[in-house]
Amino acid sequence: MSAPRPAAEPRSAYPHFGRISTRWSDNDVYGHVNNVVYYSWFDTAVNRYLIESGALDIEQGAVIGLVVETQCHYFAPLAFPQDVDAGIRVAHRGRSSVRYEVGLFGVGQDRCAARGHFIHVYVDRATRRPVGELPPELRAALRSLERP
Amino acid sequence: MSAPRPAAEPRSAYPHFGRISTRWSDNDVYGHVNNVVYYSWFDTAVNRYLIESGALDIEQGAVIGLVVETQCHYFAPLAFPQDVDAGIRVAHRGRSSVRYEVGLFGVGQDRCAARGHFIHVYVDRATRRPVGELPPELRAALRSLERP
Amino acid sequence: MSAPRPAAEPRSAYPHFGRISTRWSDNDVYGHVNNVVYYSWFDTAVNRYLIESGALDIEQGAVIGLVVETQCHYFAPLAFPQDVDAGIRVAHRGRSSVRYEVGLFGVGQDRCAARGHFIHVYVDRATRRPVGELPPELRAALRSLERP
Amino acid sequence: MSAPRPAAEPRSAYPHFGRISTRWSDNDVYGHVNNVVYYSWFDTAVNRYLIESGALDIEQGAVIGLVVETQCHYFAPLAFPQDVDAGIRVAHRGRSSVRYEVGLFGVGQDRCAARGHFIHVYVDRATRRPVGELPPELRAALRSLERP
Repeated sequence: MSAPRPAAEPRSAYPHFGRISTRWSDNDVYGHVNNVVYYSWFDTAVNRYLIESGALDIEQGAVIGLVVETQCHYFAPLAFPQDVDAGIRVAHRGRSSVRYEVGLFGVGQDRCAARGHFIHVYVDRATRRPVGELPPELRAALRSLERP
Repeated sequence: MSAPRPAAEPRSAYPHFGRISTRWSDNDVYGHVNNVVYYSWFDTAVNRYLIESGALDIEQGAVIGLVVETQCHYFAPLAFPQDVDAGIRVAHRGRSSVRYEVGLFGVGQDRCAARGHFIHVYVDRATRRPVGELPPELRAALRSLERP
Repeated sequence: MSAPRPAAEPRSAYPHFGRISTRWSDNDVYGHVNNVVYYSWFDTAVNRYLIESGALDIEQGAVIGLVVETQCHYFAPLAFPQDVDAGIRVAHRGRSSVRYEVGLFGVGQDRCAARGHFIHVYVDRATRRPVGELPPELRAALRSLERP
Repeated sequence: MSAPRPAAEPRSAYPHFGRISTRWSDNDVYGHVNNVVYYSWFDTAVNRYLIESGALDIEQGAVIGLVVETQCHYFAPLAFPQDVDAGIRVAHRGRSSVRYEVGLFGVGQDRCAARGHFIHVYVDRATRRPVGELPPELRAALRSLERP
């Protein structure tokens, strides 16, 4: 019915990390970070990397990334106020799409508490049609995220 | 690399619907509902149904549902201030787990704008160990969500 | 230390209402809607009214509203999955600013569970400088929100 | 109509700071952090301090803080992906209530981009009645937050 459950990976599976501070509102009524919040960290980790690499200009860029698929597997709870390290890598680059994979680690933990991916299709900001090829600054930024 | 992309289903694929009002903050900088928000609607639609069916007592119930896997495919944009109908169904019931599938429809649209699923493992609130079998009120509530 | 605490008003204090559906994620670890969420309902209720009245075009409008002040007093808890009615009124119109007041009511309750306000300064989208006067469509929409 | 607008304070007005990382979803359709998000940072900064000081135990503590009033004034925009420093101080301690004041600063900026407050009434977790006096660990933690 479902695909086989993937394993919790170690930090060495990710070439780049960003630190994320948790928030009071991340915890739900059961006292742990709600499953939805993990996806906001996926977006945050990847877009922060792209912006800081000069590959994404939210306001002016001619190309924007639309999300067409997301997935997450959860292995262990996380909870405010602990900090979280988001490891990111690029698993696949197509003509106009990229599959980003993200692992979330409690600070000091070597096995991820959750892992998932999202697929961006890059489109022209005005027409919202997929680009013919990824912009060169994006391709350059992605190179450092390819699996070690 | 990825599983084949599923199709956008019609409303008839879902036995139960709940209406969700969108919020200003659902739209992201690109002017449409952000991909993360869809998951908060999944949680909302299923838990509201379970609470209103008497199958889930957030504060006192002996059993709580932990999310171990989530996924979503996006077909068309949604945007505040439109209302959204969330169709829900149960695709699989295990000994201690349930796979809920959700389709999100703009009001007046027959093809879903997005579809996804999440898997709940039901655990004892105190020990957080999976239950030996689903509670009878939950099994009763799930019966109405089985695929028509 | 603080200004005197205002009273919980009845529904008759508000000329316009919009229904808001609560979400699983609105409840915090203490089992009630978190204080922050109320503000997202303020934005939602007022902007939905302005959009549906033709007074606000998020994507193309020449004028946008920037929030310079917000406040809320909380009288009684609200909790998912109950629905909420947001009453809105305009308490003051300046040359380029508007003070919106919002009361939040559980469905079936006549006294608000919370009330607050926010002040919008309307600015030119490009220059972000305050407008010399409010656009005519906005003035028309505000007229129906003035205190009865 | 409103109280006079307070000034944007310098960092020296706050005795304690915590760093907060912004998120993709913090920016709204106008490209800056939405006014609502600031309040989630207020909660986060104060509760993180209280937990790390041993004054608040979310899961087991006999006393919980209910928010009865919140307010914020906005002076300058903040935007993802910049980091934010939240300065906190205690402006007033009553028998069962505390007024927390928070200033939000872009990293490297000396004037706050926004400032606000919230008032916690501390209540017994079970009865939700105000406590007769603040618990000693809380009083101790608050002492370091009193205005320099």
